[in-house]
Amino acid sequence: MTEPLNLRIPGPTPLPDAVREVGSQQMLNHRGPEFRDLISRVGERLQRAFRTRNDILTLTCSGTGGMEAAIVNHLSPTDPVLAVSIGSFGDRFAKIAQRYGADVVRYDVEWGNAADPAALADALRAMAQAGRPARAVLLTHNETSTGVTNPLAELAAAARRAAPDSLIIVDGVSGLGAVPFEADAWELDVVATGSQKSWMVPPGLAMVSVSARAWQAAERATMPRFYFDLAEARRFLGKGETPWTPAVSVLLQLDVALELLEREGYEQIFARHAACGAAARAGLKAMGFRLLADHHHASNTVTAAWLPEGVEWSGLNRLLLDRGLVLAGGQGKLAGSILRIGHLGAVSVADVVSAIETIERAAHELGLPLELGAGPRAARSAAHEAVPTPA
Amino acid sequence: MTEPLNLRIPGPTPLPDAVREVGSQQMLNHRGPEFRDLISRVGERLQRAFRTRNDILTLTCSGTGGMEAAIVNHLSPTDPVLAVSIGSFGDRFAKIAQRYGADVVRYDVEWGNAADPAALADALRAMAQAGRPARAVLLTHNETSTGVTNPLAELAAAARRAAPDSLIIVDGVSGLGAVPFEADAWELDVVATGSQKSWMVPPGLAMVSVSARAWQAAERATMPRFYFDLAEARRFLGKGETPWTPAVSVLLQLDVALELLEREGYEQIFARHAACGAAARAGLKAMGFRLLADHHHASNTVTAAWLPEGVEWSGLNRLLLDRGLVLAGGQGKLAGSILRIGHLGAVSVADVVSAIETIERAAHELGLPLELGAGPRAARSAAHEAVPTPA
Repeated sequence: MTEPLNLRIPGPTPLPDAVREVGSQQMLNHRGPEFRDLISRVGERLQRAFRTRNDILTLTCSGTGGMEAAIVNHLSPTDPVLAVSIGSFGDRFAKIAQRYGADVVRYDVEWGNAADPAALADALRAMAQAGRPARAVLLTHNETSTGVTNPLAELAAAARRAAPDSLIIVDGVSGLGAVPFEADAWELDVVATGSQKSWMVPPGLAMVSVSARAWQAAERATMPRFYFDLAEARRFLGKGETPWTPAVSVLLQLDVALELLEREGYEQIFARHAACGAAARAGLKAMGFRLLADHHHASNTVTAAWLPEGVEWSGLNRLLLDRGLVLAGGQGKLAGSILRIGHLGAVSVADVVSAIETIERAAHELGLPLELGAGPRAARSAAHEAVPTPA
Repeated sequence: MTEPLNLRIPGPTPLPDAVREVGSQQMLNHRGPEFRDLISRVGERLQRAFRTRNDILTLTCSGTGGMEAAIVNHLSPTDPVLAVSIGSFGDRFAKIAQRYGADVVRYDVEWGNAADPAALADALRAMAQAGRPARAVLLTHNETSTGVTNPLAELAAAARRAAPDSLIIVDGVSGLGAVPFEADAWELDVVATGSQKSWMVPPGLAMVSVSARAWQAAERATMPRFYFDLAEARRFLGKGETPWTPAVSVLLQLDVALELLEREGYEQIFARHAACGAAARAGLKAMGFRLLADHHHASNTVTAAWLPEGVEWSGLNRLLLDRGLVLAGGQGKLAGSILRIGHLGAVSVADVVSAIETIERAAHELGLPLELGAGPRAARSAAHEAVPTPA
């Protein structure tokens, strides 16, 4: 198996050495004292990262499992739900709710754009006027398929004003921990994220925060759940355990990674991601690639760009892999049309510049008209001038 | 954190060095060529271990998630289901089916005993006569809470005769890979197991086999599922992927562990577990402990014993932990009444004898009347005489 030199997909992200190393630790008893300490420490660290005093439950599953848990614990079949979709993961969120019988109304945004707070409020008011006020709004924080970060603070505020009784349920999988996020200040009821994204940990854990309002809704919610029953997870967390055997090794790694993140400091982490995002966008543009995302809402964790005329993803990807660079292609209807650079978690500007260099060389080999060196130069310069996203 | 010297709970089980070490590998792209090779190799190895040609899907979750997947993909609400429970995990299987709306009829067996094939057949015939023939029978292979292995071949044969159209759905979490198992020869439709048991891998993965008959049932089954949708998992497996980001590090470890198991050979593994089971039972009996399991059906992966009169679990457990031995207590209604020794996965007779020695010294310190050395001696001698369980 060849070791990838530069894994730049939007998750799993590269593991820092300290996180890698703890992955080889021997097993421990998940119903013993070491585990109790571990899960309590991880919980407190996650509360600081989510900026919340709400309960945070750690589930053994992917981020999609966390999204499912966020829905099935708080809603009942036939509940009216507004699903705001700006891409493939927004579609997935809507689909989960539908699968469990919710009456889903969609507010769809053209891929590459962010959702608009005023349009969101209109959609919620229309539902109320039709006598079917939304029980929940499903929002994506950072859309991995398009590289767009929604203006979540504004969207949540608009939702709260237009539908005060509605729950705000957030897919925070690919942004939380890398860009500013305020679960309590933004009054987010349920937020789900996944270990393999900005947390610099292997996949296997989803972390879900639940507000008091959402716990109340859970008591009445009748969508069926067993493995993803968050009330059961909370009951066990009270004794320092999980209801079912958790992914112990990934949790040990998450503990170490959260310590590294706190040592760096979240403000510093947000600035680093802002610089990496700016570098990725500037580098691609300097090579003549057109970016997918509206530049007002371009994500600092993943950048998507249209493939230039005549360039096929499979051919380009082969050249990139030969040079040790692993990117992601497009998802869903964007498959074969775009490339995506993941720049979240353990990533530096140098990593992004190196990826841009590799893409430039591969594009040059494919005969694209470009000036060698322009991409990396633009990337470096943009990183230097980048300003962190304000909270 | 103190490293446990002898982790003897029924999962997570200790990791062999080679499995531990691969846990520190760097991440890879779960939609790339290395992953395709990995999941295809693991699938073939699992088919040899399950003794099946059926599809095997690998899900990121605990064994309980695997049990949920085994139910929700193949049944509809109001479907009549016979749940055969011989302990806590049998109860859990029934509860999952009920939670998703199945019409569950129970055949309950006193804890410590195995289910009886004739009684199972009677229960199935009674359901058919009442005009509600069972769509599925839920069976536990090895009941972790009581240390009992069901006569699965006989139970499955009785079920097939009494209710030919019923699916046979098996919780194979804590026995498969350690004691003889024949998914195809016994005509088992759905079998779920978990990585942290006999597979010598950290928790995080459930592996589920699905027969052609079960796939047909899945097409009509209306219990809601998204994360646990096995048809979606099969569709992605066809291109060497999983629908959602899988626990990559645990899967890398499972690959290495399966290679170790195949190198040892399953016949040899079954003999080793038979010897360990015999040692555990003989050692505990020689110290005056009464075993929970009917001796005809005592498990070779976990042994449960009643705590002697006057011995409290918390006090005994503290003495054991001080000596580096980690055992499990009782679950559900057996909490505080029993101890359980896990002897599955990476376990040798020497490990079991060492555990017996430690228990003997702790029991002696608590003032129990026993002859020091008798337990380990009996354990060693029983291991020597043990005969592997026939398939």
